[in-house]
Amino acid sequence: MEHKTKGLLIVFTGHGKGKTTAALGMSMRAAGHGMKSAFLQFIKGSWKYGEMEAVKRFSDLIDFQVLGRGFTWKSNDPEADKEAARSAWGKAKTAITSGKYHMVVLDEFTYVLNYSMVDLNDALDTFKHRPPGLHVVITGRDAPKELIDMADLVTEMKVIKHPYIKGIKAQRGIEF
Amino acid sequence: MEHKTKGLLIVFTGHGKGKTTAALGMSMRAAGHGMKSAFLQFIKGSWKYGEMEAVKRFSDLIDFQVLGRGFTWKSNDPEADKEAARSAWGKAKTAITSGKYHMVVLDEFTYVLNYSMVDLNDALDTFKHRPPGLHVVITGRDAPKELIDMADLVTEMKVIKHPYIKGIKAQRGIEF
Repeated sequence: MEHKTKGLLIVFTGHGKGKTTAALGMSMRAAGHGMKSAFLQFIKGSWKYGEMEAVKRFSDLIDFQVLGRGFTWKSNDPEADKEAARSAWGKAKTAITSGKYHMVVLDEFTYVLNYSMVDLNDALDTFKHRPPGLHVVITGRDAPKELIDMADLVTEMKVIKHPYIKGIKAQRGIEF
Repeated sequence: MEHKTKGLLIVFTGHGKGKTTAALGMSMRAAGHGMKSAFLQFIKGSWKYGEMEAVKRFSDLIDFQVLGRGFTWKSNDPEADKEAARSAWGKAKTAITSGKYHMVVLDEFTYVLNYSMVDLNDALDTFKHRPPGLHVVITGRDAPKELIDMADLVTEMKVIKHPYIKGIKAQRGIEF
């Protein structure tokens, strides 16, 4: 694969809406260029029906995989949790180093970093030595400072207003 | 069209990356539910090749229209500019009131508000009296306070780091 430009390390963080959605839009935009992405989901269940159906239209160019566990991750078996995280991160590393993709999205990846389920230094080292031209996109709340320091582009999605504040229930096509 | 839930007024603002991309992801997610969107672009040229190609895969469910003019809008004919803005806003109003859509995205709409090319009170009134169940999504920098006050969900995309700062040129599939 020929790469004329350096790939970017991109982080969408903050507690506001739009992090995963922006990453999804980005991989679809790349698909519009015929560029192949891996979209790896670290929290099972964070994606809902609408996104799942939408991404199917790009199955030729976006490899979508659920690697993670549920929102809490923590079962009553800490060893099993660690093993699940190790396995998920192993698959992500393979996608990053494979040279098969123009973009690899690690959706909700900050979660496993912040809970020390994946070693931060190992992750940073992997990002640093990624193939030239590969864009890596990380989403999730509270991105570690070291990751922000290394990143080329960081947007914080900041909550200004959230519908739950006004007491409106989750909306089909918006929340799920 | 049956609406079980109240549609939301959603604003993606701030100077960071991800506003349009999040709105695009949202309309694709809605399409995943079989819900129809209008995606109306108020700044011509703000969308690039990748997005244009990606959205074509949803041409059955996303009506994409370029309504606006170039980034500066201002030609040397102020009357022609006003007429263009009036015409664009007229089309947006028709989409909002038509009852044909579950979601209407006004991409980069804050621009025409902030330059007083569209009357803010007319816009707010149109949003306020939209059909029940219709989600309206507004993107653009510096959303007016009155719009934020009326909105149900507001995310500010805040620049933490931007690649230009590091002197990296625009990337295919990222910037365009």
